[in-house]
Amino acid sequence: MTSTHRRRAKLAITATIAAAAVAIPALAYAGSNASDRTGELRKQVIGGKARNVILLIGDGMGDSEITIARNYQVGANGRLAMDTLPMTGEYTTYAVQKDNPRLPDYVTDSAASGTGWATGHKTYNGAISVLPNGKPVTTILELAKRAGYRTGDVTTAELQDATPAVLASHVVSRDCKGPQSMAACAVNAKENGGAGSIAEQMVALAPDVMLGGGKQYFDQTVQAGRYRGLSVLQQAQVNDYQIATDAAGLAKIRSIRPGKPLLGTFAKNNMDLEWAGPKPTSTGTASSRCTVNTARAASQPHLSDMASKAISLLDKASAGSRKGFFLQIEGASIDKQDHAANPCGQIGETVEFDKAVRAALNYQRSHPDTLVVVTADHGHTSQIVETGSTTKGYTATLRTQDGADMTVSYATADITGSQQHTGTEVRIAAKGPQAANVLGVTNQTDLFATMGRALRLT
Amino acid sequence: MTSTHRRRAKLAITATIAAAAVAIPALAYAGSNASDRTGELRKQVIGGKARNVILLIGDGMGDSEITIARNYQVGANGRLAMDTLPMTGEYTTYAVQKDNPRLPDYVTDSAASGTGWATGHKTYNGAISVLPNGKPVTTILELAKRAGYRTGDVTTAELQDATPAVLASHVVSRDCKGPQSMAACAVNAKENGGAGSIAEQMVALAPDVMLGGGKQYFDQTVQAGRYRGLSVLQQAQVNDYQIATDAAGLAKIRSIRPGKPLLGTFAKNNMDLEWAGPKPTSTGTASSRCTVNTARAASQPHLSDMASKAISLLDKASAGSRKGFFLQIEGASIDKQDHAANPCGQIGETVEFDKAVRAALNYQRSHPDTLVVVTADHGHTSQIVETGSTTKGYTATLRTQDGADMTVSYATADITGSQQHTGTEVRIAAKGPQAANVLGVTNQTDLFATMGRALRLT
Repeated sequence: MTSTHRRRAKLAITATIAAAAVAIPALAYAGSNASDRTGELRKQVIGGKARNVILLIGDGMGDSEITIARNYQVGANGRLAMDTLPMTGEYTTYAVQKDNPRLPDYVTDSAASGTGWATGHKTYNGAISVLPNGKPVTTILELAKRAGYRTGDVTTAELQDATPAVLASHVVSRDCKGPQSMAACAVNAKENGGAGSIAEQMVALAPDVMLGGGKQYFDQTVQAGRYRGLSVLQQAQVNDYQIATDAAGLAKIRSIRPGKPLLGTFAKNNMDLEWAGPKPTSTGTASSRCTVNTARAASQPHLSDMASKAISLLDKASAGSRKGFFLQIEGASIDKQDHAANPCGQIGETVEFDKAVRAALNYQRSHPDTLVVVTADHGHTSQIVETGSTTKGYTATLRTQDGADMTVSYATADITGSQQHTGTEVRIAAKGPQAANVLGVTNQTDLFATMGRALRLT
Repeated sequence: MTSTHRRRAKLAITATIAAAAVAIPALAYAGSNASDRTGELRKQVIGGKARNVILLIGDGMGDSEITIARNYQVGANGRLAMDTLPMTGEYTTYAVQKDNPRLPDYVTDSAASGTGWATGHKTYNGAISVLPNGKPVTTILELAKRAGYRTGDVTTAELQDATPAVLASHVVSRDCKGPQSMAACAVNAKENGGAGSIAEQMVALAPDVMLGGGKQYFDQTVQAGRYRGLSVLQQAQVNDYQIATDAAGLAKIRSIRPGKPLLGTFAKNNMDLEWAGPKPTSTGTASSRCTVNTARAASQPHLSDMASKAISLLDKASAGSRKGFFLQIEGASIDKQDHAANPCGQIGETVEFDKAVRAALNYQRSHPDTLVVVTADHGHTSQIVETGSTTKGYTATLRTQDGADMTVSYATADITGSQQHTGTEVRIAAKGPQAANVLGVTNQTDLFATMGRALRLT
C-alpha cells in the first residue's frame, strides 16, 4: 500500500458518512507502476513469541462483505484498515455433523466455527466449545489466563452470543445463555451438577475485560449452588467485578487487576446498529446513501470505543510483565444484518469493526510484539451484482464513496426470513509474530495453533 | 500443508471421479497440531527476476467456486494443487464506466478484467486491451515477445474469447472475434484501415503457441488487405504456422520455433465439458455424484494436456536462452458453467484446471526461476448453502468426496437466463520470484506490474 492509499483511506474513514463523495480517484489508469514489496514483506515474516494477541472477528465477513464495505466507504481503489495487514490467506470454516463427526457440515454457524478457532477442534453447529460428544475442550482464552496473561472478550452482540461465548464457556447448545434459558442444555445446568449457563460460566471464569450486550441474561436468576437466588450480575458483584452499563460508566473505569475484572453490558440484547438504509426489494431500489441510525442509544459505546478501552486496560494491567494479553474483539452485527438483508446495517457494522482494527493496528505499531489477526468466522449471503440489476432475491442500490452505484443482492432466503450463511473459504489476515502462518489455505482450527504458539501456550 | 495433506490431495485428484468416496478423513479433531511454517515461508519470499511466467486464470473462479470444487473433489480438509501455492492474497476486479472512466463499474466482465491484468489499465466491460477511449494498450504477452521471450496462450474457450484475446489483440468490443463478425468494431475492421478482428490480430501477432477452441472464427474470410479472400486459418498457413485440430495432431507437434508457431483449434466454439450432472431446481435435487460428460469429443485434448504440451514446447524452444517464456492458461468454462447454473460442469472444469495448475507447479519445482500465478478474473454466482435447503434461486445437492452432501445455490438470474458475475475480491496465489507481491489486497492491474517486473519488461 502506498502512502497515498493510506492517506486516502484515513480521510475517508474519518469523514462523516453523511458527507457527499469527496475527491474521486482517477481509476482508469491505475496500477502498472506498483512497486516491488518483496523486501518489505520479507521483514514481515516474523516467527517467535508474541507478548499479546488481538483477534478481531468480523462475524459473517466474507470476501464479498469486505468488498461491499470497501466500495461503499473508501471506494473500489481505497483501502480499509483491515486491508493493510501484510500476511494474508483464506481458511476453511466447515463444521462437522453431530451424529457423525467424521462427516463435514459444509456451512458452519458461529458456534462451531468459534469452537474451531478458539479450541482447535471441529464440532457441530450450535456447540459452544464442546466436542460432538458434549465434552468441554479448553479454549485459547482459558489457556492464556492460566498461563498468566490478561484476557479480554469484546462484542457488539450479547456477551452470551456464540463468538464471545466460545472463549469462556462450554455448553452443548448456544441457546443456553442464562440460568433460566437452559432447556437445550440439561446436562450443563447448575441444578443438574453442570457448570451452568454461558453467562454463569463467563462470570465464573472472569476474563479481565468483558464488554458487549446481553444484560437480560445477566439479570436471570441462578438456579442452584452457591449463588442460588442471585442474578448473574449480582454473582459478578459479590465477586468484586467492576460493572459498567453505559459509555460514561465505561469511560470512568481506570484500571483492572486480578480480582477486579470489568463487566460492561450496554444493551438488553445486541447493541444498537451504527447505520440505517434502504430495504432491498425484488424489483430493486433507487440509489441512496446510508444514514446514521438515529434510533441508536447514545449511551452505548461504539465497538471501536470498547476495543480501545479494552486494549488500554489490558496493556496497563500487564505492564512490567513478560506476559501481556489475549483479546478478542467481534463485529457481530455484520452477520446479523446480512441475515436481515440490510446492506447499510451490514456496511455500518463493518466500517465500525474496521475502526476497531485500526485501533489494534495502532497499538501494534508501538507494540510490535503483538500478533493481530483479522478474520471472519464464515461467509454470508450478500453479493455485488450488476448495477441496477434484479436477481431471484432482493436487491438495493447504494451510492458509494466513488460517486458510483453499487447493487447488492440477498437471495438465499425470503425477505421475511433469515438469509443464510455460506460455506465459502474466508479471508484471514495477520501482522506480527507468527502472522505468516495464515498464508495459503489453512483450516480454521489452525488459527488456534497459531495464536497458541505465539503466546507459547501449546 | 502437511505431507499427509499432500498425499491425500494427490490420491484424490488422480482417482477417477466415478470412484466411490475413499478413506474419509477424521474431521472432528483436526488442527491444533499445525506446525510453524514461518521459516519455510520466509524462504518463499523471493525477489529478483524470473526466467518464465506461467499465469493460470480460472475464469469466474472466486473463493466460493474454489471451495465448492475442493469440497467435492478432495473433501473439505483436502487440498487442491492451487491451494498449495505459498504466497496468497485477494485482489479487486472492478471495471470502469466507458462514458466516465473515473467511475468504477463494480462487476467486471472477463474483457475489462483481462485488460486489467494483461495491460495494467482499467477499462470498460467488453473492451479487449483498449482504453475507454478505444486506444490500444500494450499487453504483457506483446512486451514479452518483443523482449525475446517465447509466448503461449491456452484456453478451453474459443481462442477469440475475452481472456485469451486480451493478450494478443485490441478491439473495442469482445464480440469482434472474426473478420465477418465486426459489427461492433467498425473502427478495428481491416476494411476501415484497422488491425482487424481478434482472430486476425492473434494470427498476425503469432504467439509461439495458441491452443483452444474457436475454429469457426478462424474459418471466416478476411475482408481486406494482403490476405483478403483467405480464411484466417489460411492466413496462418501461408505464414508457416503448424496447425493442430485434434489431440492426436497436437501430440505429433515436436517443437516450435520463431517463424513456425503452433495454432491448435480443437472445437468450433468452446471446447467440450469434462463433467455432467444434475440441473438445480427451485425445490432442490436428490443428492448425486457428477459423471463424466459422455458427449465430450475424445478428439479434443484436455486442458491439462494442452497446458503440459505448451509448457514443454515453450521450455524446449527457449532452451539455452536467458529469456524463457510467458504462458497464459485459462480454465474458461468454470465461468461459463456458473453462468449456466451447472454445478458439475463448473466443478469438472475447476478440477481439470487444477490439473493444469499441478503441471505448472511440477515444472516450477524443477525450474524455480519460474513465477507461477493462479487467480481468477472475477467472482461468480454459486454459493454453498445449508445442506438440503432451498433459496430464492435454484439449488442442487452433490455427494462429495467426504461422503457428505453439499448444496449449491444459483440465485442471481432465472434458470433460463445467465447467472451473474459478482463484484467480490478474488483469490490470487503465487510461487517463485516476485510471488510475494500478491500478498494483502492488491488491484488486478498490479498483477501486470508483478509479471512485468519478474520478466524485466516494465
